[in-house]
Amino acid sequence: MNAYSEEQIKKITASLIENHGECDLINKECAKPLPNRDAIIEVIRELRKVIFPGYFDNNQCSSGLSEFHVGELLSRIFRILSTQIEIAFNYRNEEGLSKEQIKEKSEKITTGLFQKLPYIQQMLYKDVQAFYDGDPAAKSKEEIIFSYPGLVAIYVYRISHVLYCANVPFIPRIMSEYAHSRTGIDINSGAVIGEYFFIDHGTGIVIGETTIIGSGVKIYQGVTLGGLSTRGGQALKGVKRHPTIKDNVTIYSGASILGGDTVIGEEAVIGGNCFITESVPAKTTVILKNPDLVFKGRK
Amino acid sequence: MNAYSEEQIKKITASLIENHGECDLINKECAKPLPNRDAIIEVIRELRKVIFPGYFDNNQCSSGLSEFHVGELLSRIFRILSTQIEIAFNYRNEEGLSKEQIKEKSEKITTGLFQKLPYIQQMLYKDVQAFYDGDPAAKSKEEIIFSYPGLVAIYVYRISHVLYCANVPFIPRIMSEYAHSRTGIDINSGAVIGEYFFIDHGTGIVIGETTIIGSGVKIYQGVTLGGLSTRGGQALKGVKRHPTIKDNVTIYSGASILGGDTVIGEEAVIGGNCFITESVPAKTTVILKNPDLVFKGRK
Amino acid sequence: MNAYSEEQIKKITASLIENHGECDLINKECAKPLPNRDAIIEVIRELRKVIFPGYFDNNQCSSGLSEFHVGELLSRIFRILSTQIEIAFNYRNEEGLSKEQIKEKSEKITTGLFQKLPYIQQMLYKDVQAFYDGDPAAKSKEEIIFSYPGLVAIYVYRISHVLYCANVPFIPRIMSEYAHSRTGIDINSGAVIGEYFFIDHGTGIVIGETTIIGSGVKIYQGVTLGGLSTRGGQALKGVKRHPTIKDNVTIYSGASILGGDTVIGEEAVIGGNCFITESVPAKTTVILKNPDLVFKGRK
Repeated sequence: MNAYSEEQIKKITASLIENHGECDLINKECAKPLPNRDAIIEVIRELRKVIFPGYFDNNQCSSGLSEFHVGELLSRIFRILSTQIEIAFNYRNEEGLSKEQIKEKSEKITTGLFQKLPYIQQMLYKDVQAFYDGDPAAKSKEEIIFSYPGLVAIYVYRISHVLYCANVPFIPRIMSEYAHSRTGIDINSGAVIGEYFFIDHGTGIVIGETTIIGSGVKIYQGVTLGGLSTRGGQALKGVKRHPTIKDNVTIYSGASILGGDTVIGEEAVIGGNCFITESVPAKTTVILKNPDLVFKGRK
Repeated sequence: MNAYSEEQIKKITASLIENHGECDLINKECAKPLPNRDAIIEVIRELRKVIFPGYFDNNQCSSGLSEFHVGELLSRIFRILSTQIEIAFNYRNEEGLSKEQIKEKSEKITTGLFQKLPYIQQMLYKDVQAFYDGDPAAKSKEEIIFSYPGLVAIYVYRISHVLYCANVPFIPRIMSEYAHSRTGIDINSGAVIGEYFFIDHGTGIVIGETTIIGSGVKIYQGVTLGGLSTRGGQALKGVKRHPTIKDNVTIYSGASILGGDTVIGEEAVIGGNCFITESVPAKTTVILKNPDLVFKGRK
Repeated sequence: MNAYSEEQIKKITASLIENHGECDLINKECAKPLPNRDAIIEVIRELRKVIFPGYFDNNQCSSGLSEFHVGELLSRIFRILSTQIEIAFNYRNEEGLSKEQIKEKSEKITTGLFQKLPYIQQMLYKDVQAFYDGDPAAKSKEEIIFSYPGLVAIYVYRISHVLYCANVPFIPRIMSEYAHSRTGIDINSGAVIGEYFFIDHGTGIVIGETTIIGSGVKIYQGVTLGGLSTRGGQALKGVKRHPTIKDNVTIYSGASILGGDTVIGEEAVIGGNCFITESVPAKTTVILKNPDLVFKGRK
């Protein structure tokens, strides 16, 4: 790099810093630390070793079930997560708590999540069963735990939902977008999803923040459970904008179900590519009318 | 972490271990090692260096074509893959083979894959040609090898398909889901795909386990080659559930072609978003009838 | 590995090298180095620390805004990027330049990009504002910077577009496919995109090479801005094949807008799943006619 370039870099540096100072972020002076994205992803990756022992810790299977090994892992994850939650609340201290109060609150939330882990693990084993029962291409449950993207998405959802409910800033979204990035499945941590949930293939699925999903529901790739219009933007915050899906509903690929008042009744089946903005009664099958296709023979 | 938290973690650990012991997995006692997902992904990443020398080994281009370098790489990959296959068969020993027999079988399968590598390489060079010929945005073949997600998906498919045909447990699926995660393209290793295959953009493509695709086929983003109904679940295992696509068919973005008896004839063109559950004759173009759109002017 | 396998590997190695020598790539003898994909991705990851200080450098927030820290980072990125551009032009030297001319040209292009960084940063801060204004699920702007995939895609686009315009080979595409892989959003570096751009969810979005997008545009998951037919392949290189989207247009999920002559007028709203191949006047809302759904009650 020549002298000219060095001079340029000095000027560019000054402009970049000036821009940042003018922007409308809480932390425009960058005085308070933000959570560490890598540490939050590590929590997700490490907790998986505890919930599915033997699968993700490179053949440390025999130790996978020792109380010592699991306890060690949990203690380590506790410290990382509790620290990140503390950083998040210190950054965005809406309740005006003291540093000590924030520390205490963060440990309490982490403990709360950890106490739910055995229950979350049971939920996830039921999800694995749903995947196995629903997919003729599944050769074993082990294969599902190892590699099905739908299970990654549900696992991350079931963890991050607990932190969402505790109003932790940033961290639930960082977790769910990590899953989204790896799987193409975008489940907002705010959604409520029952047990024995099955996602097949998954790429392109969107499940909005205020969606409510019962138990035994099956969803295929490209399904949107979304809002009818988001022109309201921030004014719609907190409003129920996404549909309610009752128990044992099946929604085939590419279907869109939109709107906060839309309720899909129990055991309904929504066919591929259906576009639905009104409620569907229980035990109803909805399909696209014989799609209007035009066939043209060529020589 | 305080004493209370430590006590909690002990209890949680015990519950997690108890849950796992009760769950319905082969290895609920976690006595046998499972394959190592990272090692399997390493095989995929390393084999690419051998098939496309100079692209993925960080400028070691001159050595990229030395027999010594390629031979070394292949020997290393052989050991890793053969070991993982051995672990997989030891875990799921459905034929009741002895340890020695499993070792021998695993080496034989690995040798079989390696013997096919020059043929797979030739297929992939034809795929690169298909990508270049089909995509006006492609500036060079080098760019395709470097960065096109469709080529990643086809490369991983052509490797994993050989292991699928040899009934190797877990590993083909771990490979194909790695590609799915990186590309959004979900090709089941069981599918049969001919040469000169072109995938454009790719996100959201699903190609099911029993799909058969001829040569010269082009597929765009969001295409599903899927099953008509999967309500049968595990009862449908092994049944042909996915369509047959003959030579030189083009399938535009968002189209769904469903069902094991559905055959798309040679040189047919399937338009964007078509939803097809019945066979289409050869040399036929299918498009959506002038889509029923409503236009509303606003002031 | 036994002697038989070793013998096999020798043969396979010879075949692989022979295949490569016969294939139709510029560099079939692998004599010239190709760019290093990892280094190019590092440029993308490091530049983000400069544009959004404090978010991606693991809590080095206080140093994040020091001139020393930013200047150091920029100098390092300059060297890496300028070297990679040099390698790319040496590999594909279409103008027949000397090594010195290529070195000079590469430094000039890198300096050009760096001089635009403050402007790009301002554009990205406006994009963050658009995301916040448009998404009721966004809890803060910080969350958007940390984790929204749409912002990753736009960030990478705004950088790679500068290199695309300078005709740098390989590198813009490697950058955009890195973003595509992480987000499922495929924006070709050749597209022209105005300010205050909002992408929600994003998975499955395709924005083709010759697309022109105004300011204030909102795009949802699964939207294709594509070509009408690509049967022309390489013959269509350089032709405007993708649509023009005017200011303040909203395009809901799953819509396809195709063709180089298709213009969507200002403030138009394109409803979910619309399939559009002709121009739409300004201030017009287009929706699918009451979709023809068939409802069948079951007992």
